[in-house]
Amino acid sequence: MSQRRLIEVETSILSKNDALAAGNRRVLRALGVLALNFVSSPGSGKTTLLCRTIEALGEAPLAVIEGDQQTSVDADRIRATGARAIQINTGKGCHLDAEMIGRAIDDLRPRPNSFLFIENVGNLVCPAAFDLGEDAKVAILSVTEGEDKPLKYPDMFTAARLAVLNKVDLAPHCDADLDACEANLRRVNPDIEILRLSARTGEGMEAWLSWLRARLGEKAS
Amino acid sequence: MSQRRLIEVETSILSKNDALAAGNRRVLRALGVLALNFVSSPGSGKTTLLCRTIEALGEAPLAVIEGDQQTSVDADRIRATGARAIQINTGKGCHLDAEMIGRAIDDLRPRPNSFLFIENVGNLVCPAAFDLGEDAKVAILSVTEGEDKPLKYPDMFTAARLAVLNKVDLAPHCDADLDACEANLRRVNPDIEILRLSARTGEGMEAWLSWLRARLGEKAS
Repeated sequence: MSQRRLIEVETSILSKNDALAAGNRRVLRALGVLALNFVSSPGSGKTTLLCRTIEALGEAPLAVIEGDQQTSVDADRIRATGARAIQINTGKGCHLDAEMIGRAIDDLRPRPNSFLFIENVGNLVCPAAFDLGEDAKVAILSVTEGEDKPLKYPDMFTAARLAVLNKVDLAPHCDADLDACEANLRRVNPDIEILRLSARTGEGMEAWLSWLRARLGEKAS
Repeated sequence: MSQRRLIEVETSILSKNDALAAGNRRVLRALGVLALNFVSSPGSGKTTLLCRTIEALGEAPLAVIEGDQQTSVDADRIRATGARAIQINTGKGCHLDAEMIGRAIDDLRPRPNSFLFIENVGNLVCPAAFDLGEDAKVAILSVTEGEDKPLKYPDMFTAARLAVLNKVDLAPHCDADLDACEANLRRVNPDIEILRLSARTGEGMEAWLSWLRARLGEKAS
């Protein structure tokens, strides 16, 4: 198969995805739902952050879409907080796409002026290319992964509005240089917002919750 | 684009890749070169493990192929040990393929009865499907990623011969359950070999070096 044919195929997949994403975006705008697409490497702590966030948001209406190759482990963890969650298993697939999210939105029927949290498949490469109709991508980066990751996987951090440096409680144990990490994030995306956080200890949670509430307020207004 | 057409395209890409991988395998067998394909999430510590391994192997002949979307950071780190290394930048690509590896082998001209270490793009999904002609995939799993990862990304751990549980020095700081992690690895791949290691502290390095030397001995004999 020639390179040219491959690129045509890829373009065709992405243009169909973009059209479906536009449909998702219209539905979400009509309802005033703030949709955030959580992207990261496997094991950065996305699900734990979501569980802590849901608990801290209290009665705020929200729903969650969980993406993984296999298992419903993550949706089960989310449901244990009392939140509504749908699990999507991608099988061989390496990312969520707009069609999957469209079906999940129709099934979930999110309430007006609510949060919709989408946890993508743990993958720092492929989900960057797929618009889901979300308001923003939130990239989670565990400080244990090393401060060079923004430079090595620039597409994801260019696509993200916010980067959450998670597991900051582990920084002293793995010689993580958070300032260097932030500098690398800004090198690939000068406009990126950055929060330091530990979902485990609760450090930084207040700033994160404020960020969420401010974005929801903008969407609803 | 219909699902059927997509599957045909994927099958066509993989069958071309498999043919090129067979060519790589013939060259490596002819030379008695042991090729290991290191696969993992971003930030599991592949490059640090490789650097410590190269230092510990001393005068053993070896060469390294580094895969990343962007930068030559990893090849630079490898070359600082004195080893020969080639960096492949995949750009938008999410994995190394047999064609890239074939070109790199031809450029590197590995010595007979030597090690060839291939560090794949950090991605726990896509590299599982691409045979590079290697003798074995070695999956690195940082204990900070959580013990559920083998269940959620089973293709990679099914494809691997060996799993290295890395960063075990961080286990007490993140409540990692290494026994549960090993049980999950064996659930998706009953034949998988497992080593616990910390490239940072050196714990477990001797068993890893013995494993490497035994595999090279088998290949050369």
